[in-house]
Amino acid sequence: MEYPSKLIEDAVNEVAKLPGIGKKTALRLVLHLIKESEDKTQMLTAALTRLRANIRFCKTCHNISDAEECVICKSPRRDKSVVCVVEETKDVMAIENTEQYTGVYHVLGGIISPVQGIGPSDLHIDELVERVTKPAPGSEVKEIILALSPTLEGDTTAFYLHRKLKDLPVKITSIARGIPMGGDLEYADEITLGRSITGRVLFS
Amino acid sequence: MEYPSKLIEDAVNEVAKLPGIGKKTALRLVLHLIKESEDKTQMLTAALTRLRANIRFCKTCHNISDAEECVICKSPRRDKSVVCVVEETKDVMAIENTEQYTGVYHVLGGIISPVQGIGPSDLHIDELVERVTKPAPGSEVKEIILALSPTLEGDTTAFYLHRKLKDLPVKITSIARGIPMGGDLEYADEITLGRSITGRVLFS
Repeated sequence: MEYPSKLIEDAVNEVAKLPGIGKKTALRLVLHLIKESEDKTQMLTAALTRLRANIRFCKTCHNISDAEECVICKSPRRDKSVVCVVEETKDVMAIENTEQYTGVYHVLGGIISPVQGIGPSDLHIDELVERVTKPAPGSEVKEIILALSPTLEGDTTAFYLHRKLKDLPVKITSIARGIPMGGDLEYADEITLGRSITGRVLFS
Repeated sequence: MEYPSKLIEDAVNEVAKLPGIGKKTALRLVLHLIKESEDKTQMLTAALTRLRANIRFCKTCHNISDAEECVICKSPRRDKSVVCVVEETKDVMAIENTEQYTGVYHVLGGIISPVQGIGPSDLHIDELVERVTKPAPGSEVKEIILALSPTLEGDTTAFYLHRKLKDLPVKITSIARGIPMGGDLEYADEITLGRSITGRVLFS
């Protein structure tokens, strides 16, 4: 595409680097910013700059945080003996939204993916083992819940974690897999349906 | 939604102000920026800041431009006697992409929309009239092509322009409306199909 201005072209190229945003959408966003007052663009860029410069990660669970320790790890109402292992911050947010979980988290910061060149050493796995073997006073871990994506990479990571943790005095569980609420048996894939049968639970 | 950090919340709120981007998409983009190196965010914000601070509009056609006069108006190969009137820069880009048009443009900067409070005085309509009545030497306008959206607002704007221009020594034309290439007659709406019949052209 030919752009009427080099400034537009540069801005479009930068915006189009964001995931899920192509050149056409990027152009629409950039033209929108030009139509709006200059303040709007300043507020946007200031928020992003501030974010990137000041963002911190919790020293315990590696979740995004405003302080050295995140709100969840700091809360006296959370059960420090149960640790839910997730891939990313967005998974923490999804679980928090359910309001069903009272334990704490451990954010791996990614998932083992040989294709993308992400190995175990790129993730916060050693720190997880340390939380079990060398707990802070009052934070002894009794259960680790694996809440990883049901994908090849997720399963690989879960198996790796299991191998690392299985000889430690800690219970390892995984979130339940099965037919989602509102899901129609007819349209469920075979693996999900198969697992939901082999992993059946007592009716209550 | 609960955010793990005020910085994230601020950034998400700013990004979600962009058109077509909701809170969920904004969060995904913001978390992506955090995962990437700080340079990436800097390059993005720098491009947007530079764009907004330095963007200019062509003094003749009001299209976005890097200089006082845009590349199209400056080009000796463009026919200055034919002016295509469009709503926005993106329409210029769409027509330029066809490589079928050799005239110049006039960007109104919007469309008459009483609902959004946009009246004729908010658009570059007087400047269009001036291009016809007081042309720069060698830029006498012989034909004005109205290329506005086929919507209520577009038609209103076209009628307003026609009233302003009809007594001037200039031919006023409109882009052809009809069945698009690859369009199936069966699925065309009645107005389009009706217009394509009343506005039929000689087979060539």
